[in-house]
Amino acid sequence: MSEKHLQTGDALPPFGGKLRLFAMRFCPYAERSVLVLNAKNIPYDLVFINLDQKPEWIFNFSPRGAVPALEYEQGKGIFDSNVINVYLDEKYPEVPLQAADPLRRAQDKLIVENFSAAQSAYYTAAFNAQALQPSHLENYHKGLELLQKELETRGTKFLHGDQAGLVDYTLWPFLERFEALPLLGKSEYAIDKSKYDILLTYMESMKQVPAVKTYYLSADMHAKFTESRVKGDPNYNMLDSSAEVCCFRPRKKKE
Amino acid sequence: MSEKHLQTGDALPPFGGKLRLFAMRFCPYAERSVLVLNAKNIPYDLVFINLDQKPEWIFNFSPRGAVPALEYEQGKGIFDSNVINVYLDEKYPEVPLQAADPLRRAQDKLIVENFSAAQSAYYTAAFNAQALQPSHLENYHKGLELLQKELETRGTKFLHGDQAGLVDYTLWPFLERFEALPLLGKSEYAIDKSKYDILLTYMESMKQVPAVKTYYLSADMHAKFTESRVKGDPNYNMLDSSAEVCCFRPRKKKE
Repeated sequence: MSEKHLQTGDALPPFGGKLRLFAMRFCPYAERSVLVLNAKNIPYDLVFINLDQKPEWIFNFSPRGAVPALEYEQGKGIFDSNVINVYLDEKYPEVPLQAADPLRRAQDKLIVENFSAAQSAYYTAAFNAQALQPSHLENYHKGLELLQKELETRGTKFLHGDQAGLVDYTLWPFLERFEALPLLGKSEYAIDKSKYDILLTYMESMKQVPAVKTYYLSADMHAKFTESRVKGDPNYNMLDSSAEVCCFRPRKKKE
Repeated sequence: MSEKHLQTGDALPPFGGKLRLFAMRFCPYAERSVLVLNAKNIPYDLVFINLDQKPEWIFNFSPRGAVPALEYEQGKGIFDSNVINVYLDEKYPEVPLQAADPLRRAQDKLIVENFSAAQSAYYTAAFNAQALQPSHLENYHKGLELLQKELETRGTKFLHGDQAGLVDYTLWPFLERFEALPLLGKSEYAIDKSKYDILLTYMESMKQVPAVKTYYLSADMHAKFTESRVKGDPNYNMLDSSAEVCCFRPRKKKE
């Protein structure tokens, strides 16, 4: 797998017969589907795309060109991380990632929904800091408190249970990125040990889950990508060891 | 069932031992869950609430006080029409409303997702007409074309198949309200027979489905409610035959 992001004009790589996920290396929604594919041990190919100069063929799989998109059969796609992940879990039931009880499945979805205001706050803090309001910081911490309280109530290592499940893989990509906020000068967004001991223990456990570990990026990496995006020149290929252009040379501005 | 909407200060009616749905009579999202409960023949009580002066107890079932909310067990609730409806379909599997094939289930969800821009356009046209842009009208008709094309491709009476299913009950409340737009002076939002023959035949079939028929309101009724809401004084109880205040007397302004 190459970390290079394909862009307008680049050819669609030949279909290899496996499921194929279209993603962007730093996109938390795409990460959700990567983690589910990993956790379920489903063989797949991963294709990264440049979201500012999208290759033409992405629209065959995802009508608005959004990632993640899953090519489930040559030339045919579905999109939206939640739709893809439920599809994968139902289609490949060998490693089930959703709770067996319908009520628990509903409650897991509502945790994700109740956490969404914290995600929005993260986006504002990371990418649009001049629009930050006190309510963003409040929603962010409410989201963290909600997760911590839920972990405490459930009393399990992960929200899903003794093993991580869909609810954990859905929330994780945001928690991974939240740790970049203090590095971006947002110290009030730190996840402090004195307040979030249970949540931090959970986060350390998540980092050790094999499905997460192989795709995990450090807070420092996320901060670097965020800074490049805020400057208007997202460095999609910063992890690509084959890149011709390194970070310290002048880079072409986005057209 | 009373059509009266309970409000701040009103007591929560005693729990009757059945599932209880909290709704607002004119809310399309709440209607989604009403239709699913009806279609599955699940006994339930329906409680309408005033969304401008919410009764305090709604927050016990739905953290932001949004409807629909389902009291699945005395004092315990879940919310969000999609979460509620999948829960009901999984918990009460006797009348299954989702497709058996995981891919088809994913595709059904994507129809709903692709239709959402038409829903937003409807809201703007109905409630915030001064903000209308040409893109709203375009998205609205794109949504209608999408449904018609899908009906044509599938070649079944309903999107779900020979019987209506979750995908139909999820989309229907909006189609029901779309027919009010020409009555509100938005003639370019009409669903014209020359262009939408297949879609209109489908809509007529939906109106005959028992689950829909018992809850259906005419375009005229929806237009009247919409006008009252646009004026800033939503007439929640306009269908309540026991109402003391009729439409032609002066009504108290919202505080």
